[in-house]
Amino acid sequence: MKATVYVTIKQNVLDPQGSAVQGALHTMGFAEVGKVRVGKYLELELDTTDRSEAETRLTAMCEKLLANTVIEDYRFELEG
Amino acid sequence: MKATVYVTIKQNVLDPQGSAVQGALHTMGFAEVGKVRVGKYLELELDTTDRSEAETRLTAMCEKLLANTVIEDYRFELEG
Repeated sequence: MKATVYVTIKQNVLDPQGSAVQGALHTMGFAEVGKVRVGKYLELELDTTDRSEAETRLTAMCEKLLANTVIEDYRFELEG
Repeated sequence: MKATVYVTIKQNVLDPQGSAVQGALHTMGFAEVGKVRVGKYLELELDTTDRSEAETRLTAMCEKLLANTVIEDYRFELEG
């Protein structure tokens, strides 16, 4: 089973990396770029076929390691 | 218009960050985790309504700044 995890910074938390990317794009002439938010994207292969078990385990992985839930949100998708 | 950009490391390029995450998950007892790949996820607000123009500009942004096309692939989605 393949899992895709998206980790994003919460809406009300400052994103300095996003601001830096926005500034760089403006400097390069892409003036139409407004707010930029940068997050993480993970692809995991899971050696399991039980979907609900996989969801439980993935939630635990996100809570414990993949996301810092104080400042980040996460969501995931399962395939296969 | 809102754009979502996914930047991922090419399949045949080593991903040390992914290996580190996989190792950490194994150490924490998530033995079912196989290969892990880590990428970037960006959300951009674009002040434009012309979809094909936005696609051209986003491709330029990805080629010039957001992705290192030697070792990374990118794809994007446009909404609104």
